[in-house]
Amino acid sequence: MDEFATIERIVDVLGPHSTGPWVNVGPGDDAALIQARPDHELVASIDTLVADVHFPAEVPADLIGYRALMVALSDLAAMAAQPRYVLVALTCDAIDGDWIGDLAAGMAAAAARVEVPLCGGNLARGPLSISVSVHGDVPVGQAVLRSGAKVGEYVYVTGALGGAAACVRERDFAPREELTALQTAYYRPLARFDCGGDLRDVATAAIDISDGLVGDLTHIAGASGVGLALSARDIPVAPGAQLDDALYGGDDYELAFTSPLALPNYPCIGTVAVGAGVLIDGQPAQRSGFRHFHDQ
Amino acid sequence: MDEFATIERIVDVLGPHSTGPWVNVGPGDDAALIQARPDHELVASIDTLVADVHFPAEVPADLIGYRALMVALSDLAAMAAQPRYVLVALTCDAIDGDWIGDLAAGMAAAAARVEVPLCGGNLARGPLSISVSVHGDVPVGQAVLRSGAKVGEYVYVTGALGGAAACVRERDFAPREELTALQTAYYRPLARFDCGGDLRDVATAAIDISDGLVGDLTHIAGASGVGLALSARDIPVAPGAQLDDALYGGDDYELAFTSPLALPNYPCIGTVAVGAGVLIDGQPAQRSGFRHFHDQ
Repeated sequence: MDEFATIERIVDVLGPHSTGPWVNVGPGDDAALIQARPDHELVASIDTLVADVHFPAEVPADLIGYRALMVALSDLAAMAAQPRYVLVALTCDAIDGDWIGDLAAGMAAAAARVEVPLCGGNLARGPLSISVSVHGDVPVGQAVLRSGAKVGEYVYVTGALGGAAACVRERDFAPREELTALQTAYYRPLARFDCGGDLRDVATAAIDISDGLVGDLTHIAGASGVGLALSARDIPVAPGAQLDDALYGGDDYELAFTSPLALPNYPCIGTVAVGAGVLIDGQPAQRSGFRHFHDQ
Repeated sequence: MDEFATIERIVDVLGPHSTGPWVNVGPGDDAALIQARPDHELVASIDTLVADVHFPAEVPADLIGYRALMVALSDLAAMAAQPRYVLVALTCDAIDGDWIGDLAAGMAAAAARVEVPLCGGNLARGPLSISVSVHGDVPVGQAVLRSGAKVGEYVYVTGALGGAAACVRERDFAPREELTALQTAYYRPLARFDCGGDLRDVATAAIDISDGLVGDLTHIAGASGVGLALSARDIPVAPGAQLDDALYGGDDYELAFTSPLALPNYPCIGTVAVGAGVLIDGQPAQRSGFRHFHDQ
Protein backbone atom coordinates (compact mmCIF):
# COMPACT_ATOMS: atom_id res chain seq x y z
CA MET A 1 0.00 0.00 0.00
CA ASP A 2 1.66 3.27 -1.01
CA GLU A 3 1.53 6.57 0.81
CA PHE A 4 -1.27 8.12 -1.20
CA ALA A 5 -3.45 5.00 -1.08
CA THR A 6 -2.93 4.84 2.67
CA ILE A 7 -3.93 8.46 3.11
CA GLU A 8 -7.02 7.80 0.99
CA ARG A 9 -7.92 4.91 3.25
CA ILE A 10 -7.47 7.03 6.37
CA VAL A 11 -9.66 9.78 4.95
CA ASP A 12 -12.20 7.15 3.97
CA VAL A 13 -12.30 5.68 7.47
CA LEU A 14 -12.55 9.13 9.02
CA GLY A 15 -15.56 9.78 6.85
CA PRO A 16 -17.54 12.80 8.11
CA HIS A 17 -14.98 13.36 10.88
CA SER A 18 -12.36 14.66 8.44
CA THR A 19 -14.48 17.71 7.85
CA GLY A 20 -17.21 19.75 9.48
CA PRO A 21 -19.30 22.87 9.19
CA TRP A 22 -16.31 25.15 9.79
CA VAL A 23 -13.78 23.27 7.64
CA ASN A 24 -13.61 24.94 4.22
CA VAL A 25 -10.90 22.64 2.84
CA GLY A 26 -10.07 19.30 4.45
CA PRO A 27 -7.49 16.67 3.52
CA GLY A 28 -6.06 16.75 -0.01
CA ASP A 29 -4.53 20.17 -0.54
CA ASP A 30 -1.29 21.68 0.76
CA ALA A 31 -3.05 22.70 3.97
CA ALA A 32 -6.48 22.69 5.54
CA LEU A 33 -8.66 25.80 5.62
CA ILE A 34 -10.71 26.47 8.73
CA GLN A 35 -13.13 29.27 9.56
CA ALA A 36 -12.19 31.38 12.56
CA ARG A 37 -14.85 32.67 14.93
CA PRO A 38 -15.04 36.38 15.63
CA ASP A 39 -14.16 37.46 19.17
CA HIS A 40 -12.29 34.25 19.90
CA GLU A 41 -8.64 33.57 20.60
CA LEU A 42 -6.91 30.52 19.14
CA VAL A 43 -5.67 27.84 21.54
CA ALA A 44 -3.02 25.42 20.31
CA SER A 45 -1.05 22.46 21.61
CA ILE A 46 0.84 19.41 20.32
CA ASP A 47 1.53 16.00 21.87
CA THR A 48 3.43 12.94 20.74
CA LEU A 49 2.84 9.34 21.72
CA VAL A 50 5.76 7.02 20.96
CA ALA A 51 5.26 3.26 20.73
CA ASP A 52 6.62 1.42 23.77
CA VAL A 53 7.20 4.68 25.58
CA HIS A 54 3.67 6.04 25.83
CA PHE A 55 1.71 2.96 24.87
CA PRO A 56 2.46 -0.74 24.38
CA ALA A 57 2.91 -1.26 20.62
CA GLU A 58 0.83 -4.44 20.68
CA VAL A 59 -2.32 -2.69 21.88
CA PRO A 60 -5.20 -2.76 19.38
CA ALA A 61 -4.73 0.15 16.98
CA ASP A 62 -8.18 1.63 17.50
CA LEU A 63 -7.44 2.09 21.20
CA ILE A 64 -4.11 3.75 20.38
CA GLY A 65 -5.80 6.08 17.91
CA TYR A 66 -8.58 7.04 20.27
CA ARG A 67 -6.23 7.70 23.15
CA ALA A 68 -3.69 9.66 21.10
CA LEU A 69 -6.33 12.10 19.95
CA MET A 70 -8.13 12.47 23.27
CA VAL A 71 -4.96 12.89 25.34
CA ALA A 72 -3.84 15.74 23.11
CA LEU A 73 -7.26 17.37 23.10
CA SER A 74 -7.27 17.39 26.89
CA ASP A 75 -4.80 20.30 26.87
CA LEU A 76 -7.44 22.42 25.16
CA ALA A 77 -10.06 21.44 27.73
CA ALA A 78 -7.61 22.52 30.43
CA MET A 79 -7.69 26.06 29.00
CA ALA A 80 -11.53 26.04 28.94
CA ALA A 81 -11.34 26.16 25.16
CA GLN A 82 -13.61 24.47 22.65
CA PRO A 83 -11.98 22.13 20.12
CA ARG A 84 -11.95 23.34 16.51
CA TYR A 85 -9.59 21.11 14.53
CA VAL A 86 -6.94 18.44 14.80
CA LEU A 87 -3.94 17.49 12.62
CA VAL A 88 -2.19 14.14 12.97
CA ALA A 89 1.38 13.25 11.95
CA LEU A 90 1.70 9.48 11.83
CA THR A 91 5.12 7.87 11.54
CA CYS A 92 5.21 4.12 11.02
CA ASP A 93 7.67 1.59 9.67
CA ALA A 94 5.56 -0.66 7.54
CA ILE A 95 2.32 0.51 6.05
CA ASP A 96 -0.20 -2.09 7.16
CA GLY A 97 -3.51 -0.91 5.76
CA ASP A 98 -5.68 -2.76 8.26
CA TRP A 99 -3.71 -1.54 11.25
CA ILE A 100 -3.84 2.04 10.00
CA GLY A 101 -7.52 1.70 9.23
CA ASP A 102 -8.14 0.62 12.82
CA LEU A 103 -6.01 3.48 14.10
CA ALA A 104 -8.05 5.93 12.04
CA ALA A 105 -11.29 4.38 13.30
CA GLY A 106 -10.18 4.98 16.88
CA MET A 107 -9.29 8.56 16.02
CA ALA A 108 -12.68 9.00 14.38
CA ALA A 109 -14.36 7.72 17.55
CA ALA A 110 -12.50 10.27 19.67
CA ALA A 111 -13.18 13.05 17.16
CA ALA A 112 -16.87 12.17 17.14
CA ARG A 113 -17.06 12.15 20.93
CA VAL A 114 -15.94 15.76 21.23
CA GLU A 115 -17.17 16.85 17.79
CA VAL A 116 -13.86 18.01 16.33
CA PRO A 117 -12.75 17.49 12.72
CA LEU A 118 -9.44 15.74 11.97
CA CYS A 119 -8.87 17.76 8.83
CA GLY A 120 -5.21 17.24 7.99
CA GLY A 121 -2.14 15.16 8.61
CA ASN A 122 1.08 13.67 7.43
CA LEU A 123 2.31 10.13 6.88
CA ALA A 124 6.03 9.37 7.21
CA ARG A 125 8.12 6.24 7.29
CA GLY A 126 9.95 5.59 10.54
CA PRO A 127 9.59 4.17 14.04
CA LEU A 128 5.95 4.17 15.18
CA SER A 129 4.82 7.42 16.76
CA ILE A 130 1.84 9.71 16.57
CA SER A 131 1.98 13.47 16.93
CA VAL A 132 -1.37 15.16 17.41
CA SER A 133 -1.68 18.89 16.95
CA VAL A 134 -4.87 20.26 18.51
CA HIS A 135 -6.49 23.60 17.99
CA GLY A 136 -9.41 25.24 19.67
CA ASP A 137 -10.73 28.63 20.52
CA VAL A 138 -12.08 30.50 23.48
CA PRO A 139 -13.90 33.82 23.81
CA VAL A 140 -11.27 36.56 24.04
CA GLY A 141 -9.93 36.86 27.57
CA GLN A 142 -11.72 33.78 28.92
CA ALA A 143 -8.97 31.17 28.66
CA VAL A 144 -8.13 29.68 32.05
CA LEU A 145 -4.37 29.61 32.62
CA ARG A 146 -2.28 27.90 35.29
CA SER A 147 -1.30 31.18 36.84
CA GLY A 148 -4.50 32.59 38.31
CA ALA A 149 -4.91 30.72 41.63
CA LYS A 150 -5.20 32.97 44.69
CA VAL A 151 -4.80 32.30 48.38
CA GLY A 152 -8.05 31.35 50.05
CA GLU A 153 -9.60 29.72 46.99
CA TYR A 154 -10.76 26.13 46.74
CA VAL A 155 -9.15 23.33 44.72
CA TYR A 156 -11.46 21.10 42.70
CA VAL A 157 -11.25 18.13 40.39
CA THR A 158 -13.77 17.16 37.75
CA GLY A 159 -14.00 13.46 38.60
CA ALA A 160 -12.57 10.35 40.20
CA LEU A 161 -8.83 9.78 39.77
CA GLY A 162 -6.44 6.85 39.64
CA GLY A 163 -8.32 4.43 37.40
CA ALA A 164 -5.90 4.77 34.49
CA ALA A 165 -2.90 4.55 36.82
CA ALA A 166 -4.29 1.40 38.40
CA CYS A 167 -4.59 -0.11 34.92
CA VAL A 168 -0.93 0.76 34.34
CA ARG A 169 0.14 -0.49 37.77
CA GLU A 170 -1.56 -3.81 37.19
CA ARG A 171 -0.19 -3.91 33.63
CA ASP A 172 -3.73 -4.73 32.60
CA PHE A 173 -3.34 -3.72 28.96
CA ALA A 174 -4.77 -6.68 27.05
CA PRO A 175 -8.35 -5.79 26.32
CA ARG A 176 -10.92 -8.53 26.77
CA GLU A 177 -14.15 -8.60 24.86
CA GLU A 178 -15.30 -5.62 26.80
CA LEU A 179 -12.92 -3.16 28.44
CA THR A 180 -12.81 -3.32 32.23
CA ALA A 181 -13.48 -0.14 34.16
CA LEU A 182 -9.75 0.44 34.68
CA GLN A 183 -9.00 -0.21 31.01
CA THR A 184 -11.73 2.21 30.06
CA ALA A 185 -10.09 4.83 32.27
CA TYR A 186 -6.75 4.24 30.54
CA TYR A 187 -7.82 3.71 26.94
CA ARG A 188 -10.96 5.76 26.63
CA PRO A 189 -10.47 8.96 28.60
CA LEU A 190 -12.78 11.86 27.82
CA ALA A 191 -11.33 15.36 27.53
CA ARG A 192 -13.61 17.41 29.77
CA PHE A 193 -14.86 19.98 27.28
CA ASP A 194 -18.24 19.56 28.96
CA CYS A 195 -16.82 21.50 31.94
CA GLY A 196 -15.61 24.39 29.76
CA GLY A 197 -18.55 26.67 30.43
CA ASP A 198 -18.21 26.20 34.18
CA LEU A 199 -14.46 26.80 34.02
CA ARG A 200 -14.84 30.01 32.04
CA ASP A 201 -17.42 31.22 34.57
CA VAL A 202 -15.74 30.30 37.85
CA ALA A 203 -12.17 28.97 37.54
CA THR A 204 -9.08 31.07 38.24
CA ALA A 205 -6.54 28.40 37.21
CA ALA A 206 -6.83 24.97 35.62
CA ILE A 207 -4.75 22.06 34.34
CA ASP A 208 -5.49 18.62 33.00
CA ILE A 209 -4.28 15.70 35.09
CA SER A 210 -1.96 13.89 32.71
CA ASP A 211 1.16 13.34 34.82
CA GLY A 212 -0.58 12.81 38.19
CA LEU A 213 -2.59 15.07 40.49
CA VAL A 214 0.37 16.15 42.63
CA GLY A 215 2.70 16.74 39.69
CA ASP A 216 0.15 18.74 37.76
CA LEU A 217 -1.01 20.77 40.75
CA THR A 218 2.65 21.60 41.36
CA HIS A 219 2.56 23.40 38.01
CA ILE A 220 -0.45 25.46 39.11
CA ALA A 221 1.25 26.22 42.43
CA GLY A 222 4.42 27.33 40.67
CA ALA A 223 2.72 29.39 37.98
CA SER A 224 0.42 31.05 40.51
CA GLY A 225 3.04 31.55 43.25
CA VAL A 226 0.95 29.79 45.89
CA GLY A 227 0.78 26.53 47.81
CA LEU A 228 -2.00 24.01 47.41
CA ALA A 229 -3.10 22.22 50.59
CA LEU A 230 -4.94 18.99 49.84
CA SER A 231 -6.97 16.79 52.13
CA ALA A 232 -6.27 13.14 51.27
CA ARG A 233 -9.68 11.86 52.32
CA ASP A 234 -11.42 14.33 50.01
CA ILE A 235 -9.66 13.10 46.88
CA PRO A 236 -12.09 11.02 44.85
CA VAL A 237 -10.43 7.67 44.11
CA ALA A 238 -11.78 5.65 41.20
CA PRO A 239 -13.20 2.20 42.03
CA GLY A 240 -10.36 -0.34 41.83
CA ALA A 241 -7.70 2.32 42.31
CA GLN A 242 -5.71 3.30 45.39
CA LEU A 243 -5.02 6.73 46.84
CA ASP A 244 -1.45 6.62 45.47
CA ASP A 245 -2.82 6.00 41.98
CA ALA A 246 -4.98 9.08 42.36
CA LEU A 247 -2.19 11.24 43.78
CA TYR A 248 0.75 10.21 41.63
CA GLY A 249 -0.52 8.26 38.65
CA GLY A 250 -1.49 10.16 35.56
CA ASP A 251 -3.46 9.44 32.44
CA ASP A 252 -6.97 10.15 33.76
CA TYR A 253 -7.34 13.48 31.96
CA GLU A 254 -9.76 14.88 34.46
CA LEU A 255 -9.20 18.57 35.18
CA ALA A 256 -8.03 20.21 38.39
CA PHE A 257 -8.94 23.84 38.95
CA THR A 258 -9.18 26.57 41.54
CA SER A 259 -12.10 28.84 42.25
CA PRO A 260 -13.14 31.31 44.93
CA LEU A 261 -16.65 29.85 44.86
CA ALA A 262 -18.26 26.89 46.63
CA LEU A 263 -19.17 24.51 43.82
CA PRO A 264 -21.33 21.60 44.92
CA ASN A 265 -21.03 19.81 41.57
CA TYR A 266 -17.28 19.21 41.82
CA PRO A 267 -15.30 17.40 44.54
CA CYS A 268 -13.37 19.96 46.59
CA ILE A 269 -9.98 18.48 47.48
CA GLY A 270 -8.26 21.36 49.23
CA THR A 271 -7.53 25.05 49.40
CA VAL A 272 -5.04 27.54 48.03
CA ALA A 273 -2.61 28.63 50.72
CA VAL A 274 0.34 30.93 51.19
CA GLY A 275 3.50 28.98 50.34
CA ALA A 276 4.73 26.82 47.50
CA GLY A 277 4.18 23.35 46.12
CA VAL A 278 1.59 20.80 47.17
CA LEU A 279 0.81 19.74 50.74
CA ILE A 280 -1.12 16.58 51.56
CA ASP A 281 -2.74 16.70 55.01
CA GLY A 282 -0.18 19.34 55.94
CA GLN A 283 2.91 17.46 54.71
CA PRO A 284 4.82 18.30 51.53
CA ALA A 285 4.04 15.76 48.81
CA GLN A 286 6.98 13.41 48.37
CA ARG A 287 6.79 12.51 44.73
CA SER A 288 5.90 14.53 41.73
CA GLY A 289 4.37 11.95 39.43
CA PHE A 290 4.66 10.98 35.79
CA ARG A 291 5.17 7.29 35.47
CA HIS A 292 5.36 5.92 31.97
CA PHE A 293 3.48 2.65 31.60
CA HIS A 294 6.71 0.65 31.58
CA ASP A 295 8.41 2.39 34.48
CA GLN A 296 6.88 0.17 37.14
CA MET B 1 19.26 17.10 31.51
CA ASP B 2 15.63 16.42 32.35
CA GLU B 3 12.60 17.19 30.26
CA PHE B 4 11.69 20.47 31.92
CA ALA B 5 15.26 21.79 31.93
CA THR B 6 15.54 20.92 28.25
CA ILE B 7 12.32 22.74 27.43
CA GLU B 8 13.60 25.74 29.38
CA ARG B 9 16.77 25.69 27.33
CA ILE B 10 14.84 25.49 24.07
CA VAL B 11 12.64 28.43 25.07
CA ASP B 12 15.74 30.31 26.12
CA VAL B 13 17.44 29.72 22.76
CA LEU B 14 14.28 30.69 20.89
CA GLY B 15 14.27 33.97 22.77
CA PRO B 16 11.96 36.49 21.12
CA HIS B 17 10.97 33.91 18.49
CA SER B 18 8.86 31.94 20.98
CA THR B 19 6.42 34.80 21.14
CA GLY B 20 5.29 37.80 19.18
CA PRO B 21 2.77 40.61 19.04
CA TRP B 22 -0.15 38.26 18.43
CA VAL B 23 0.86 35.55 20.91
CA ASN B 24 -1.03 36.09 24.16
CA VAL B 25 0.40 33.03 25.93
CA GLY B 26 3.53 31.25 24.69
CA PRO B 27 5.34 28.19 26.04
CA GLY B 28 4.66 27.15 29.63
CA ASP B 29 0.93 26.59 29.98
CA ASP B 30 -1.27 23.72 28.77
CA ALA B 31 -1.57 25.37 25.37
CA ALA B 32 -0.58 28.54 23.57
CA LEU B 33 -3.04 31.41 23.04
CA ILE B 34 -2.94 33.26 19.75
CA GLN B 35 -4.95 36.22 18.51
CA ALA B 36 -7.04 35.58 15.41
CA ARG B 37 -7.43 38.25 12.76
CA PRO B 38 -10.92 39.28 11.70
CA ASP B 39 -11.95 38.39 8.15
CA HIS B 40 -9.26 35.72 7.86
CA GLU B 41 -9.49 31.98 7.47
CA LEU B 42 -7.10 29.68 9.31
CA VAL B 43 -4.66 27.61 7.25
CA ALA B 44 -3.08 24.54 8.89
CA SER B 45 -0.64 21.80 7.99
CA ILE B 46 1.72 19.33 9.67
CA ASP B 47 4.93 17.66 8.49
CA THR B 48 7.34 15.17 10.01
CA LEU B 49 11.04 14.78 9.33
CA VAL B 50 12.48 11.44 10.47
CA ALA B 51 16.21 11.00 11.01
CA ASP B 52 17.86 8.95 8.26
CA VAL B 53 14.68 9.05 6.19
CA HIS B 54 14.29 12.78 5.58
CA PHE B 55 17.71 13.98 6.68
CA PRO B 56 21.04 12.36 7.57
CA ALA B 57 21.17 12.14 11.37
CA GLU B 58 24.76 13.36 11.45
CA VAL B 59 23.94 16.72 9.90
CA PRO B 60 24.58 19.71 12.19
CA ALA B 61 21.49 20.20 14.33
CA ASP B 62 20.98 23.85 13.45
CA LEU B 63 20.61 22.92 9.78
CA ILE B 64 18.09 20.21 10.68
CA GLY B 65 16.11 22.62 12.81
CA TYR B 66 16.06 25.34 10.18
CA ARG B 67 15.03 22.98 7.43
CA ALA B 68 12.34 21.21 9.46
CA LEU B 69 10.58 24.46 10.20
CA MET B 70 10.91 25.98 6.75
CA VAL B 71 9.84 22.86 4.88
CA ALA B 72 6.65 22.68 6.92
CA LEU B 73 5.95 26.39 6.53
CA SER B 74 6.21 26.06 2.78
CA ASP B 75 2.77 24.41 2.71
CA LEU B 76 1.27 27.63 4.02
CA ALA B 77 3.08 29.69 1.39
CA ALA B 78 1.59 27.35 -1.23
CA MET B 79 -1.89 28.43 -0.13
CA ALA B 80 -0.90 32.13 -0.34
CA ALA B 81 -1.32 32.32 3.43
CA GLN B 82 0.70 34.31 5.91
CA PRO B 83 2.36 32.40 8.74
CA ARG B 84 0.95 32.99 12.23
CA TYR B 85 2.35 30.33 14.56
CA VAL B 86 4.28 27.08 14.71
CA LEU B 87 4.26 24.15 17.15
CA VAL B 88 7.08 21.60 17.23
CA ALA B 89 6.95 18.04 18.58
CA LEU B 90 10.50 16.79 19.05
CA THR B 91 11.16 13.12 19.72
CA CYS B 92 14.72 12.15 20.59
CA ASP B 93 16.45 9.27 22.30
CA ALA B 94 18.99 10.91 24.50
CA ILE B 95 18.61 14.47 25.66
CA ASP B 96 21.83 16.18 24.61
CA GLY B 97 21.43 19.77 25.66
CA ASP B 98 23.94 21.18 23.18
CA TRP B 99 22.47 19.32 20.25
CA ILE B 100 18.96 20.43 21.16
CA GLY B 101 20.18 23.97 21.70
CA ASP B 102 21.62 23.98 18.18
CA LEU B 103 18.41 22.53 16.81
CA ALA B 104 16.42 25.29 18.50
CA ALA B 105 18.83 27.91 17.17
CA GLY B 106 18.22 26.67 13.63
CA MET B 107 14.49 26.79 14.22
CA ALA B 108 14.81 30.31 15.58
CA ALA B 109 16.68 31.32 12.42
CA ALA B 110 13.90 29.98 10.23
CA ALA B 111 11.22 31.56 12.41
CA ALA B 112 13.01 34.88 12.25
CA ARG B 113 13.34 34.74 8.49
CA VAL B 114 9.59 34.53 7.92
CA GLU B 115 8.60 36.28 11.16
CA VAL B 116 6.55 33.53 12.74
CA PRO B 117 6.52 32.63 16.45
CA LEU B 118 7.32 29.09 17.58
CA CYS B 119 5.01 29.32 20.56
CA GLY B 120 4.51 25.73 21.69
CA GLY B 121 5.78 22.22 21.48
CA ASN B 122 6.31 18.83 23.01
CA LEU B 123 9.37 16.82 23.95
CA ALA B 124 9.17 13.01 23.96
CA ARG B 125 11.68 10.23 24.28
CA GLY B 126 12.05 7.97 21.25
CA PRO B 127 13.76 7.66 17.87
CA LEU B 128 14.77 11.06 16.49
CA SER B 129 12.02 12.82 14.55
CA ILE B 130 10.56 16.28 14.34
CA SER B 131 6.92 17.06 13.65
CA VAL B 132 6.19 20.66 12.80
CA SER B 133 2.63 21.93 12.90
CA VAL B 134 2.25 25.21 11.01
CA HIS B 135 -0.61 27.66 11.11
CA GLY B 136 -1.33 30.72 9.07
CA ASP B 137 -4.20 32.77 7.86
CA VAL B 138 -5.44 34.26 4.66
CA PRO B 139 -8.16 36.82 3.89
CA VAL B 140 -11.46 34.94 3.60
CA GLY B 141 -11.84 33.42 0.15
CA GLN B 142 -8.33 34.24 -1.02
CA ALA B 143 -6.54 30.97 -0.35
CA VAL B 144 -5.07 29.48 -3.52
CA LEU B 145 -5.92 25.79 -3.82
CA ARG B 146 -4.62 23.12 -6.16
CA SER B 147 -7.94 22.85 -7.93
CA GLY B 148 -8.38 26.15 -9.73
CA ALA B 149 -6.23 25.79 -12.89
CA LYS B 150 -8.13 26.34 -16.16
CA VAL B 151 -7.33 25.45 -19.73
CA GLY B 152 -5.45 28.22 -21.52
CA GLU B 153 -3.71 29.57 -18.44
CA TYR B 154 0.05 29.83 -17.96
CA VAL B 155 2.19 27.74 -15.59
CA TYR B 156 4.79 29.60 -13.54
CA VAL B 157 7.44 28.86 -10.96
CA THR B 158 8.84 31.30 -8.44
CA GLY B 159 12.52 30.50 -8.95
CA ALA B 160 15.25 28.21 -10.16
CA LEU B 161 14.84 24.50 -9.43
CA GLY B 162 17.05 21.49 -8.87
CA GLY B 163 19.70 22.88 -6.55
CA ALA B 164 18.55 20.90 -3.53
CA ALA B 165 18.16 17.75 -5.62
CA ALA B 166 21.68 18.18 -7.00
CA CYS B 167 22.97 18.39 -3.42
CA VAL B 168 21.15 15.15 -2.68
CA ARG B 169 22.33 13.48 -5.91
CA GLU B 170 25.93 14.35 -5.16
CA ARG B 171 25.44 13.33 -1.51
CA ASP B 172 27.05 16.61 -0.65
CA PHE B 173 25.71 16.81 2.90
CA ALA B 174 28.79 17.62 4.98
CA PRO B 175 28.79 21.38 5.39
CA ARG B 176 32.12 23.13 5.02
CA GLU B 177 32.86 26.42 6.70
CA GLU B 178 30.42 28.09 4.40
CA LEU B 179 27.57 26.25 2.71
CA THR B 180 27.96 25.74 -1.03
CA ALA B 181 25.20 27.01 -3.29
CA LEU B 182 23.74 23.52 -3.60
CA GLN B 183 23.92 22.97 0.15
CA THR B 184 22.20 26.28 0.69
CA ALA B 185 19.41 25.16 -1.62
CA TYR B 186 19.01 21.96 0.38
CA TYR B 187 19.55 23.18 3.93
CA ARG B 188 18.34 26.73 3.82
CA PRO B 189 15.26 26.90 1.61
CA LEU B 190 13.00 29.91 1.98
CA ALA B 191 9.24 29.41 2.04
CA ARG B 192 7.98 31.90 -0.53
CA PHE B 193 5.67 33.98 1.63
CA ASP B 194 7.06 36.98 -0.23
CA CYS B 195 5.03 35.83 -3.26
CA GLY B 196 1.78 35.58 -1.28
CA GLY B 197 0.38 38.93 -2.34
CA ASP B 198 1.00 38.15 -6.01
CA LEU B 199 -0.55 34.70 -5.65
CA ARG B 200 -3.68 36.03 -4.00
CA ASP B 201 -4.02 38.59 -6.79
CA VAL B 202 -3.32 36.45 -9.85
CA ALA B 203 -2.96 32.71 -9.17
CA THR B 204 -5.73 30.20 -9.85
CA ALA B 205 -3.89 27.18 -8.41
CA ALA B 206 -0.61 26.73 -6.54
CA ILE B 207 1.56 24.12 -4.87
CA ASP B 208 4.99 24.09 -3.28
CA ILE B 209 7.63 22.02 -5.02
CA SER B 210 8.64 19.56 -2.32
CA ASP B 211 8.53 16.22 -4.15
CA GLY B 212 9.70 17.46 -7.56
CA LEU B 213 8.19 19.74 -10.20
CA VAL B 214 6.54 16.98 -12.22
CA GLY B 215 5.18 15.15 -9.20
CA ASP B 216 3.76 18.26 -7.63
CA LEU B 217 2.30 19.62 -10.87
CA THR B 218 0.61 16.24 -11.29
CA HIS B 219 -1.33 17.09 -8.13
CA ILE B 220 -2.47 20.40 -9.61
CA ALA B 221 -3.41 18.66 -12.87
CA GLY B 222 -5.41 16.02 -11.00
CA ALA B 223 -7.15 18.42 -8.63
CA SER B 224 -7.99 20.83 -11.44
CA GLY B 225 -8.96 18.20 -14.03
CA VAL B 226 -6.55 19.53 -16.63
CA GLY B 227 -3.23 18.69 -18.27
CA LEU B 228 -0.10 20.78 -17.83
CA ALA B 229 2.11 21.12 -20.91
CA LEU B 230 5.66 22.14 -20.01
CA SER B 231 8.46 23.36 -22.20
CA ALA B 232 11.75 21.85 -21.00
CA ARG B 233 13.93 24.73 -22.16
CA ASP B 234 11.81 27.22 -20.19
CA ILE B 235 12.35 25.50 -16.87
CA PRO B 236 14.83 27.51 -14.82
CA VAL B 237 17.56 25.13 -13.66
CA ALA B 238 19.67 26.20 -10.68
CA PRO B 239 23.43 26.62 -11.30
CA GLY B 240 25.13 23.27 -10.68
CA ALA B 241 21.92 21.33 -11.22
CA GLN B 242 20.67 19.38 -14.23
CA LEU B 243 17.29 19.44 -15.92
CA ASP B 244 16.40 16.11 -14.31
CA ASP B 245 17.10 17.57 -10.88
CA ALA B 246 14.72 20.39 -11.68
CA LEU B 247 12.01 18.11 -13.10
CA TYR B 248 12.12 15.21 -10.68
CA GLY B 249 14.12 16.21 -7.62
CA GLY B 250 12.32 17.90 -4.78
CA ASP B 251 13.29 19.93 -1.76
CA ASP B 252 13.58 23.34 -3.37
CA TYR B 253 10.34 24.70 -1.91
CA GLU B 254 9.78 27.16 -4.68
CA LEU B 255 6.14 27.46 -5.70
CA ALA B 256 4.47 26.46 -8.95
CA PHE B 257 1.25 28.18 -9.88
CA THR B 258 -1.14 28.86 -12.72
CA SER B 259 -2.56 32.18 -13.83
CA PRO B 260 -4.48 33.57 -16.79
CA LEU B 261 -2.17 36.59 -16.82
CA ALA B 262 1.20 37.26 -18.43
CA LEU B 263 3.56 37.78 -15.49
CA PRO B 264 6.99 39.05 -16.48
CA ASN B 265 8.39 38.61 -12.96
CA TYR B 266 8.05 34.82 -12.89
CA PRO B 267 9.47 32.22 -15.30
CA CYS B 268 6.64 30.81 -17.42
CA ILE B 269 7.26 27.10 -17.96
CA GLY B 270 4.17 26.00 -19.83
CA THR B 271 0.44 26.18 -20.29
CA VAL B 272 -2.71 24.55 -18.98
CA ALA B 273 -4.19 22.22 -21.58
CA VAL B 274 -7.13 19.92 -22.06
CA GLY B 275 -6.11 16.47 -20.81
CA ALA B 276 -4.53 14.99 -17.71
CA GLY B 277 -1.13 14.78 -16.06
CA VAL B 278 2.05 16.54 -17.06
CA LEU B 279 3.53 16.71 -20.58
CA ILE B 280 7.13 17.72 -21.25
CA ASP B 281 7.65 18.99 -24.80
CA GLY B 282 4.52 17.10 -25.76
CA GLN B 283 5.46 13.77 -24.18
CA PRO B 284 3.94 12.42 -20.95
CA ALA B 285 6.41 12.78 -18.09
CA GLN B 286 7.90 9.41 -17.22
CA ARG B 287 8.56 9.69 -13.54
CA SER B 288 6.64 11.31 -10.79
CA GLY B 289 9.35 12.34 -8.37
CA PHE B 290 9.95 12.17 -4.65
CA ARG B 291 13.38 10.82 -3.96
CA HIS B 292 14.40 10.59 -0.34
CA PHE B 293 17.98 11.64 0.22
CA HIS B 294 19.13 8.03 0.60
CA ASP B 295 17.20 6.57 -2.31
CA GLN B 296 19.89 7.30 -4.88
